[in-house]
Amino acid sequence: MIYVDNAATTKLDSEVFQAMTPYLTDLYGNPSSRYRMAVESKKAINNARVKIADIIGAKENEIFFTSGGSEADSWVINAYADILGKKQVITTAIEHHAIINSCEAIRRKGVPVKYLSVNREGIIAEEELKRVLKKETSIVSIAYANNEIGTIQNIKSLSEIAHEYHTLFHTDAVQAIGHENINVNELGVDLLSASAHKFNGPKGMGFLYKKQDAKITSLIYGGKQEKGVRGGTENVASIVGMAVALENNIKHLNTIKEQVVKLEQFVREKISNRIEDIIFNGNYNKHMSGNISVSFRDIDAEALINLLDIRGVCVSAGSACNEGTDEVSHVLRGIGLPKEYMKGTIRISIGKYNTLQEMEEMCDIIEESVKLLRRK
Amino acid sequence: MIYVDNAATTKLDSEVFQAMTPYLTDLYGNPSSRYRMAVESKKAINNARVKIADIIGAKENEIFFTSGGSEADSWVINAYADILGKKQVITTAIEHHAIINSCEAIRRKGVPVKYLSVNREGIIAEEELKRVLKKETSIVSIAYANNEIGTIQNIKSLSEIAHEYHTLFHTDAVQAIGHENINVNELGVDLLSASAHKFNGPKGMGFLYKKQDAKITSLIYGGKQEKGVRGGTENVASIVGMAVALENNIKHLNTIKEQVVKLEQFVREKISNRIEDIIFNGNYNKHMSGNISVSFRDIDAEALINLLDIRGVCVSAGSACNEGTDEVSHVLRGIGLPKEYMKGTIRISIGKYNTLQEMEEMCDIIEESVKLLRRK
Repeated sequence: MIYVDNAATTKLDSEVFQAMTPYLTDLYGNPSSRYRMAVESKKAINNARVKIADIIGAKENEIFFTSGGSEADSWVINAYADILGKKQVITTAIEHHAIINSCEAIRRKGVPVKYLSVNREGIIAEEELKRVLKKETSIVSIAYANNEIGTIQNIKSLSEIAHEYHTLFHTDAVQAIGHENINVNELGVDLLSASAHKFNGPKGMGFLYKKQDAKITSLIYGGKQEKGVRGGTENVASIVGMAVALENNIKHLNTIKEQVVKLEQFVREKISNRIEDIIFNGNYNKHMSGNISVSFRDIDAEALINLLDIRGVCVSAGSACNEGTDEVSHVLRGIGLPKEYMKGTIRISIGKYNTLQEMEEMCDIIEESVKLLRRK
Repeated sequence: MIYVDNAATTKLDSEVFQAMTPYLTDLYGNPSSRYRMAVESKKAINNARVKIADIIGAKENEIFFTSGGSEADSWVINAYADILGKKQVITTAIEHHAIINSCEAIRRKGVPVKYLSVNREGIIAEEELKRVLKKETSIVSIAYANNEIGTIQNIKSLSEIAHEYHTLFHTDAVQAIGHENINVNELGVDLLSASAHKFNGPKGMGFLYKKQDAKITSLIYGGKQEKGVRGGTENVASIVGMAVALENNIKHLNTIKEQVVKLEQFVREKISNRIEDIIFNGNYNKHMSGNISVSFRDIDAEALINLLDIRGVCVSAGSACNEGTDEVSHVLRGIGLPKEYMKGTIRISIGKYNTLQEMEEMCDIIEESVKLLRRK
């Protein structure tokens, strides 16, 4: 099997599994309890919090564990829909559905939402952000990197613009954390969402970074966990796993990136040379390493994915989250991909476990499959 | 170590860990993807859904996976705060904080909330429910069993009363699922919350049962997961684990209950015979098996818990969720426990892994510790 759908989810790092195991077996104490076994659990989540905070340049008390990126995103939009009497949310046309659907929900409740447009490469125009920002704007939410086409925004500039208008800035960094060097202070963001399973951590785990002085209301109420703003007995094993996964990926970031970029370049070149009528989507110069969104003219991506699957290659059409629906991706619509390429888009996302040999084999399989489909 | 805090959290069943392991290692596909490895994940969560639905008498499409009981509770209160123009939420004074704090949040937004009182045993008066129900009531939410004192309500009668007023009925069954024979049809509930780690499943996993024809809005938005009402890549391993945990506990329910009840009776008798000035809280006739909420006159529960911990006995003061705060439990206040007993309450919660020998040893330790504290 050649797994190149790392933007959908990643294989759990074996060291992460090892780190999680004690908390899935013997150390099962509830971190809110006071006896020693439970204190072990409490210590473990605190250590994880410190590790994660250190890696992204945050303070320990600025990290809030969630059940994943979608919870973190939903939490932010829900909380800032109407805070301190401010009422306008600004986001973009190519956000993840966790943001877009949260925004549509608050829009139905009467909170104005502005969707910024993007250019052919998926980049936000800073001028448009300046134009739509108002003193009523409660939050600007722009993803660090797009999950389908991999485009990375200039978050630093965008957050500066928001701050000029005294508006908080949130970035959904689900695709980027663990793959890019991200420092919340350098970026100037007030809130940031992350998901463990995108960086070789466990599914069902993520975190929200929230700058100390940014107020927030809860989405999930319960006990006094997470400084009283996120209820629910902590998922100790997965919290520990997430921290180890992030630590491992960041420790080897340069090596991993170098390897992934090399594989990506190899694949882009091979596909370009061997297959005609294709478009690579996104901005090549500043995009997620390993992400190749490629559109084949007059090809049905679903048929292509099935052919690839038969030969053991795992890729997505656009993004995993939209699969199983006939809808054309809002991201591909957002960047204005020509119609004849729209249905023929696949996303190859290379990860740290991929090898050159796999990429060679995959390129052959893709070439043969596209040719087979075009011959029909 | 003698672990008798099973109402706070439980040890993961070793078969559950075995069942989870493949999905934490090799079978890491995103259930939303279409290739075969991902289809394995999809199948696994569908099988888990069928298992759980079968056990509680629900339909497969009525089970929605969440990150735990607090999410399920928060989801329900948030969704029904203002649905179809109806606006009043009825709950009780002794609910879990996931319900109470969610209710307080919607109350601050202007939705009226009525808290039903309870008697000395923690039981809701059906007459009071009838009195406060209005045609504007959108939901009645009453826990199946209280997490501190173990009192089980007569949910069947209460849900019938709600239905007479065309009001939906939710039960937080977090403490009871996996320990009681619960059938949603027999109970007549429209919504039910559950949490895996309370029945020897993994932390960070739960589900919401929602009757097919009950409408709901989302709390966590995202992709098309969970029929479009709960976004986020599914926590496959924990979903699988929860189903196995529930299946195992229910399969052996009678045997487990018999054993737990025997141990509980043994402990109650020993403590009654050996220690003076104590009160057992809750309703002895209809309560969670294994739950012993006991108040020692003029004892500081925190000091007692520390002494017990030193000798390897793990118990909670009231409930784990309130620990680390100096607040007196709202449940103990709710049942009107005499003041001189209030600060001296511990909760012993016996589980399926406890033995008679442990209980004998524990009773000795409790007796000695209480006497030591009273001698001071």
